[in-house]
Amino acid sequence: MRARDLAVEFPTVTLDTPALEAARLLAERDLPGLILLDDKGRPLSILPGTQVLRLAVPRYCQDDPALARVVDEAHADLFLRQLGGRTVRECLPEQPRQLPVTDLDATVLELAALMARTRSPLVAVMDNRRLIGAVTLQSLLDHVLEL
Amino acid sequence: MRARDLAVEFPTVTLDTPALEAARLLAERDLPGLILLDDKGRPLSILPGTQVLRLAVPRYCQDDPALARVVDEAHADLFLRQLGGRTVRECLPEQPRQLPVTDLDATVLELAALMARTRSPLVAVMDNRRLIGAVTLQSLLDHVLEL
Repeated sequence: MRARDLAVEFPTVTLDTPALEAARLLAERDLPGLILLDDKGRPLSILPGTQVLRLAVPRYCQDDPALARVVDEAHADLFLRQLGGRTVRECLPEQPRQLPVTDLDATVLELAALMARTRSPLVAVMDNRRLIGAVTLQSLLDHVLEL
Repeated sequence: MRARDLAVEFPTVTLDTPALEAARLLAERDLPGLILLDDKGRPLSILPGTQVLRLAVPRYCQDDPALARVVDEAHADLFLRQLGGRTVRECLPEQPRQLPVTDLDATVLELAALMARTRSPLVAVMDNRRLIGAVTLQSLLDHVLEL
């Protein structure tokens, strides 16, 4: 079994996608993350869902989540409005790291090694420079546990 | 809206749970992670799915996932067998970090701040010392996007 057998079409975003649209995509399609493409259609980053939240949460609350409790419940409920007109460009992790990206021939062991190393539940699969889709941790486990 | 309104029952494991059973739980119930309890029933760690893979992937493949390709496809397909008799005890992240754990009164902003800070798509919810359940990133987004 190789990446070509497991990869499925996967939603992508660009740097200019509104952050709120990215949040909706994560929620509606029940995704562990999003593939961020550059203007040439190549993966620039794999964005975990938790990183989209970062934009909507004030910095002082991220530094000390207990401080979030000074915001009353009614205002807290609306925190996603902070995403306002912001884009995915502003959700990028501060430090670049190895991207969980591989090719069609990757075995399940290679996919698992990439997920373990990069702590990403999502690996993008390329055919040369073209994005074919992605393999999720869920789909990898579903397949290998059947064996 | 507070953690008490969002928390749902969530599967837990202990240090002695077989790692293979943890992998099956992740796959069958489509979970972003597992709550690991100590022998007093308190959260010891929130274990992301990618960390369960770490036990099954040889160290040299984690250091350089491309090296996984020296293992042929037939053997790669069976890599989860490496979990053998291992337990969750051996999946623990090397460095302890702030746990995504909160109480029933946490607002959605506090839940989001915890997820963003700890990069965990899962927050455990306690009532005093008793685990009530967990809030996932998916369920948080589903609720706040409706507003």
